[in-house]
Amino acid sequence: MTTTVPEAIERGRALAVPALRATVDRLHPRLRHVVAYHRGWVDAAGEPVPGNGGKLVRPALALLSAEAAGAPAEVGLPAAVAVELVHDFSLLHDDLMDGDRERRHRATAWTVFGADGAILAGDALLGLATQVLLEVEGEPGRRAAVILGAGVQDLVRGQAEDLLFESRSDVSVAETLHMEDGKTGALLACSASLGAVLAGAPDEVVDGLAEYGSRLGTAFQLIDDLLGIWGDPAVTGKPVLNDLRSRKKSVPVVVALEAGGDDADELRAFLTEEGEASEDDLHRIAALVERAGGRDWTTAEADRQLKACENALRSISIPASAEAELLAMARFVTERDR
Amino acid sequence: MTTTVPEAIERGRALAVPALRATVDRLHPRLRHVVAYHRGWVDAAGEPVPGNGGKLVRPALALLSAEAAGAPAEVGLPAAVAVELVHDFSLLHDDLMDGDRERRHRATAWTVFGADGAILAGDALLGLATQVLLEVEGEPGRRAAVILGAGVQDLVRGQAEDLLFESRSDVSVAETLHMEDGKTGALLACSASLGAVLAGAPDEVVDGLAEYGSRLGTAFQLIDDLLGIWGDPAVTGKPVLNDLRSRKKSVPVVVALEAGGDDADELRAFLTEEGEASEDDLHRIAALVERAGGRDWTTAEADRQLKACENALRSISIPASAEAELLAMARFVTERDR
Repeated sequence: MTTTVPEAIERGRALAVPALRATVDRLHPRLRHVVAYHRGWVDAAGEPVPGNGGKLVRPALALLSAEAAGAPAEVGLPAAVAVELVHDFSLLHDDLMDGDRERRHRATAWTVFGADGAILAGDALLGLATQVLLEVEGEPGRRAAVILGAGVQDLVRGQAEDLLFESRSDVSVAETLHMEDGKTGALLACSASLGAVLAGAPDEVVDGLAEYGSRLGTAFQLIDDLLGIWGDPAVTGKPVLNDLRSRKKSVPVVVALEAGGDDADELRAFLTEEGEASEDDLHRIAALVERAGGRDWTTAEADRQLKACENALRSISIPASAEAELLAMARFVTERDR
Repeated sequence: MTTTVPEAIERGRALAVPALRATVDRLHPRLRHVVAYHRGWVDAAGEPVPGNGGKLVRPALALLSAEAAGAPAEVGLPAAVAVELVHDFSLLHDDLMDGDRERRHRATAWTVFGADGAILAGDALLGLATQVLLEVEGEPGRRAAVILGAGVQDLVRGQAEDLLFESRSDVSVAETLHMEDGKTGALLACSASLGAVLAGAPDEVVDGLAEYGSRLGTAFQLIDDLLGIWGDPAVTGKPVLNDLRSRKKSVPVVVALEAGGDDADELRAFLTEEGEASEDDLHRIAALVERAGGRDWTTAEADRQLKACENALRSISIPASAEAELLAMARFVTERDR
C-alpha cells in the first residue's frame, strides 16, 4: 500500500523548518552542532548536508491544532517548535541509554559527540522547548508550558518503565500499554493540542485534540510493534524479526506471555537466554507469538485505538477542513504495510 | 576560622525540606528513588538514612529573596524548591559526564543506578522545576519560569565549555571566568532573585538580587579553585593539590598559563602529560602556579567579586533585615579557610 503524504506535512515543514533553525541557532555553538547533526542538517564536521530532515509529523499536528481552534497555523508555530525540540531531546537521551548506534541510517549523536554531547544537547533542548512556549505572552503561553511539562513527565516515566521492564519477566499487557502511552502517546497528545492552547481554545477542544493525539500515538506504537516482528524491511528500514532478535518485550510478545501455557514458558525461556539467536529460532518464536494470539490481539487493539482517535476528533466542534486534515494525518501515521 | 551557620540556613531548611520531599514524591517510584538517594534521604536499597541532607544554600537564598521584596518567606517556597531541583539535575548529569564516582563521601547516583537512572532522574527534575514555578498562578510564576529557563541555558553552556576546555591548551582567563559564571553563577543568580520575582518585585530589585547571586557564585567558585590546589582537606573533604592531580584548568592555572614564559611552558607540558603525577611533581607545579601569580590573582579576584556582590545588594532598596541576612549568607558561602 502506498500512502500519499498529506498536504499538512508539506505546509508544516515550510513553516516549521525555518522556525526550528532559528531556535536551534540560539544554542551554544557546540550544542548547536550536536542538534544540527542529530536533525540531519549538517554532518559530523559541521558541513551542511542535503536532505529534507524528516517528516516533522509533530509540528504538522501542532499547526493543524491551531487551525482546529479557528486560528491561523502561525499561531501554533511556537508549539510546533516546542514539541519537535522535546522529541529531539528524548531521542538524543534515549539513543544513548538504549545504546543504539544508528538512527535513520546515520550514526547516532552520542557515538559522534560522546555521551556528554548528547546529554547536554538534550538538556538544552528540553529547557529551550519551554522557553519557546513562555515567550508567547500571557495565559496561553503559560498554559501550554504547563501541559508540555506534564507531557515531559509522562515521556520520562515511559522511558524509565521501558528500561525497568527489560529485567522483569512478569510485565503485563496493561503495564506495557501504559508504558507505550508515555513513550509515544504523551508527546503526540501535546503536539495535537498545544496549537489550540496557544489559540486560546476552550478546554473541551483542547482535551479532545489531546485524546486524538494520545490514541494516535498508541495506535502508531502498536503498529510499530507489529512491524518489529512481521514488518517489511523495505518499509521500516529495520530487518524483519528485529524486535525478537533484541528480545524486546513488545506488546505482541507480552500478549503471548500473558496467554500462559507451554508456549508462554518457551517464550519466557527464549527472552531470558543470552547470546545471539539463530534465524530458525527467531522464526519459531515469531510463529509461537502468532499462535498465542499476539499478532491478532495487537492488530485489533491498534484498530481500536485508531477508532478511538477518530472518535475523539469527531466529538469536538472544529472546522471541517481541520477535521479532515487531522483524519488524513492519522491515516498517514498509521497506514504502513503490516 | 570557624564560620557560624546563618539563621537563614536553619529557617530555610525547616521550610524547604518538607516542600522538596513532597515535590520529589510526585516522581515515578524508580526516579524518586534515584533522587532520594542522590539527596542523601535513602540508601541504595531505599531505606531512610539519618543525616541533614545538605545545607540547602540555594533554597535559603530564594526564601530570603522573597523577604527582600517585602513578602513572607513562604512566597519564595516554589522558587526554593525549583532552584534546588535544578541543582540536583545538574549534579546528577555532571557527575555522570565527569565520571565522578563519589560525592559527599557517597557513591554517585550513576554508579548505583546506572547512567540511565541518572539521566532520566535529571531530566525529570529539570521538567519538574519549571512545573513548580508555573503552578504559581499568573504573571509572577510565568516570569520566574522564564528567568529559570535562561539560567538553565547558562548552566548547560557552562558545563559544555568546561568539557570543551579540557581538550584545549589555549583557554583564556576571561573564557574560564565566563564558563564558571555559567556553571556556578547562573543558578545562584536565580536562587537570589526568583523569590522576589514570585513576590512581584520591580525589575531593579530583581536585577540587583540576581547580580548579588551571580557575583557570589563567581566568588565561591574562585575560592573553590584556590582550595582545589592549596586547600585544607579537613575543610574541603578533598585532598590538597587535587585539581592539579586531575590536571584541571582552574582559574589559578589559567592565570599562570596566560602569564607566559618558561613557567607557562612547563605548566602546559604538565597539563598535557598522561598518567599519574608524583607528589613531588604536584608540589613543584603548585609552587610554579603560585610564582606565576595564579594564587594572588585568584585571591584578589575573589575579593573583588565578593565586594561587587555586596555592592549589588546595597544598591537596591530592600528591608534592612533581609540585607543583613543576605550579607551573612555571602560571608557564609565564601568564608572557608583559604
